[in-house]
Amino acid sequence: MTRIVEYRHESATLTGEASIASLFRHLCASRLVTIAQIEGRVRAAGSEFVLACDMRFAAQETAIFGQFEPAFGQVPGGGAAQHLTRLMGRARALEVMLSADDYDAVLAERYGWINRALPAAKLSEFATALAHRIAGFPAVAHVTVKERVNAIALAPSEHFRRDSDLFGESVRQPDAQGRIQSAIQRGFQTREGELALPSLLGDLDSPRAA
Amino acid sequence: MTRIVEYRHESATLTGEASIASLFRHLCASRLVTIAQIEGRVRAAGSEFVLACDMRFAAQETAIFGQFEPAFGQVPGGGAAQHLTRLMGRARALEVMLSADDYDAVLAERYGWINRALPAAKLSEFATALAHRIAGFPAVAHVTVKERVNAIALAPSEHFRRDSDLFGESVRQPDAQGRIQSAIQRGFQTREGELALPSLLGDLDSPRAA
Amino acid sequence: MTRIVEYRHESATLTGEASIASLFRHLCASRLVTIAQIEGRVRAAGSEFVLACDMRFAAQETAIFGQFEPAFGQVPGGGAAQHLTRLMGRARALEVMLSADDYDAVLAERYGWINRALPAAKLSEFATALAHRIAGFPAVAHVTVKERVNAIALAPSEHFRRDSDLFGESVRQPDAQGRIQSAIQRGFQTREGELALPSLLGDLDSPRAA
Repeated sequence: MTRIVEYRHESATLTGEASIASLFRHLCASRLVTIAQIEGRVRAAGSEFVLACDMRFAAQETAIFGQFEPAFGQVPGGGAAQHLTRLMGRARALEVMLSADDYDAVLAERYGWINRALPAAKLSEFATALAHRIAGFPAVAHVTVKERVNAIALAPSEHFRRDSDLFGESVRQPDAQGRIQSAIQRGFQTREGELALPSLLGDLDSPRAA
Repeated sequence: MTRIVEYRHESATLTGEASIASLFRHLCASRLVTIAQIEGRVRAAGSEFVLACDMRFAAQETAIFGQFEPAFGQVPGGGAAQHLTRLMGRARALEVMLSADDYDAVLAERYGWINRALPAAKLSEFATALAHRIAGFPAVAHVTVKERVNAIALAPSEHFRRDSDLFGESVRQPDAQGRIQSAIQRGFQTREGELALPSLLGDLDSPRAA
Repeated sequence: MTRIVEYRHESATLTGEASIASLFRHLCASRLVTIAQIEGRVRAAGSEFVLACDMRFAAQETAIFGQFEPAFGQVPGGGAAQHLTRLMGRARALEVMLSADDYDAVLAERYGWINRALPAAKLSEFATALAHRIAGFPAVAHVTVKERVNAIALAPSEHFRRDSDLFGESVRQPDAQGRIQSAIQRGFQTREGELALPSLLGDLDSPRAA
C-alpha cells in the first residue's frame, strides 16, 4: 500500500497513465515473457500482479489466492475481473470475487487461476528450468506468440481503465472507507490479520469484541 | 413442461419477450446474486435454469447434468449453447450437446459446467454459508462485479433470442415431433424414463419392444 | 512433411486457399461431426489436425501433445494459437507454445487441450460408441449446434490466415532455417529424435556431440 505512489509514477512513465491497471496491462503486452512463482499469499493487487504475468506456478502446500475487494464494496481495480473471467469463466470468476475468500493452489489450478500447482520442493527448479528453456528459443517467437494470444485473450486497455476508474470512485465512498477502517481496526494488513483474512472480512459488520 | 405458459408470461412481464431464454438471461443480468445447489437431475431447460444462475454447486454422489435437445434434432433454446461454450470451450460444449448424454457432477466440474462438486452431506451447509457471506458484503459490489463480468462472458440478448427461435422452429418439424412422440411412448417424462434417459434417447430409432 | 503439397492442393479445392490452416478451419466449420481418437504423439500440424476436430479423446498412458514451432522461432501456422487460447486461456496457451514441450494426456485434459484422457484399453470402444450415438441423432442438430457453437468459439478465417502467413514468413528466415537444419542433424523427424523431441529442441543452441 505504501508503494502505490511509486507504482503510479512508474506506470505514468511507461504507459502515459498513472494507474496500476495500465502498468499491469503493459506487462501483459510486453515483449518479455514473465513467469510467476508463488509460494505465499497473493491477494488484491498482489494477485493482479501475478495475473498480469504470462504464466503462474504455485506451491500446492502454501500458496493462497484472493481477490477480496468486493468485501469493501469494490470491483478489483488492477485487471482481475478481466483476467479471471477469461481464465475461469463467468461462474467461477463471480464466485471468486463475490466470496472475497481465500483459494488454495489446488483449487486455483482446477479453476484455471494458475497454470499448475506443484510440490513446494520442486517449484523453484521447475520454474527456473522453464524460464531457461523459453529463453533459449528465438525472441521473435516470444513476441509473435504473445501478440497472437493477446489478440484473443487480453482485454483492451479501455476495459482495464474502466475497472481502474470504478475502483477509484468506489474506494472514496464513505461506506467503503468505513469498511476499510473497520478492517484495519481488526488487523487488516498486519501479519495476524492477513493469516485470518477471510474471517476478518466476513466479520466486518459484526460488533467488534472489546 | 406444463408450466411453460406460466414462464412465458413471467418472461413477457419482466423482459418484454415471451421466451424462457429471455427470462433466463434476465436472471444472469439481474442485480441479485444467485447460487444453484443441485442434488438431483437437471437436464434441458432445468439445466439451462441453473446455467442462468451465477454459480453452481452440486452433490458429487447424485447430481446429473444433461443437455439432450439435439437427440430430438434441436439446439437448446434457453441459452445452454451460449453458456456451455463459454464455460467449457468448443470441444466439450459440442460433446455435451451432440452426445445428449448424462454427465455426473465430478465430470461436470472437470468440464467447468459447475463451479464445484461437493460431498452431498456438506453441500447445503457450503452453499448457505457462501450465500450469507456474499449477502454481508455491499450490494454495490454485487452489481458492479456482475456488470464487469457479464460484459465479458454473458452473451448478448440477440444470441439468446436466436437460439430460442431456432429451438421453436425445429420443435415444430415433423421429424422432431415424431422423435418426441417416440420418446414419450418409451417413458420420457416419467420417473422410470428419466432415470434411464440416455439409453432411451439413444434408442429412439430402434423398433420398440412390444 | 512430404505431403504438404498434397494438403495444399486439397485445401485450394475445398476453400479456395492453399494453406493447411484454411483446410483445418474448413473441417471445424463442416457439417460433419469429427472425433479424434489419439493414442500416440501428435505435435505441430498433427496437433493442429486434432485441434480442428470437434472433440478429442486420448489414451492416458501413451498420448503426447506438443506445439513446438516457437522452438524454431515461429507461431504455429495451422490454427493452434487460435484453438489453444480459446480452450485453455491465455496463460496455459502461452506456456504450451512458448515451452515447445511435450504434454501427456492427463495434463492435456486438465488444460482443456482434449476432452478427456481415458484408459487406452477403453478408448476405442468409447469413441466408437460416442460416434454411433451422435450419428443416430438428426443431422439437422449436428449442423445447428455446430453453427451456434462455432459462432462463439471458432476464430474467423482471417485469423487463421494471419497465423498461416506469419508462419510462412518466419519459416523462410535464415535463423529459422538454421535451427531446423540443426534439429534435422540431431534426429528431428526420425523415430529416435521424435521420442526425445523436447530435449532435442531444448538443445539446439548447444554444440553438438561429435
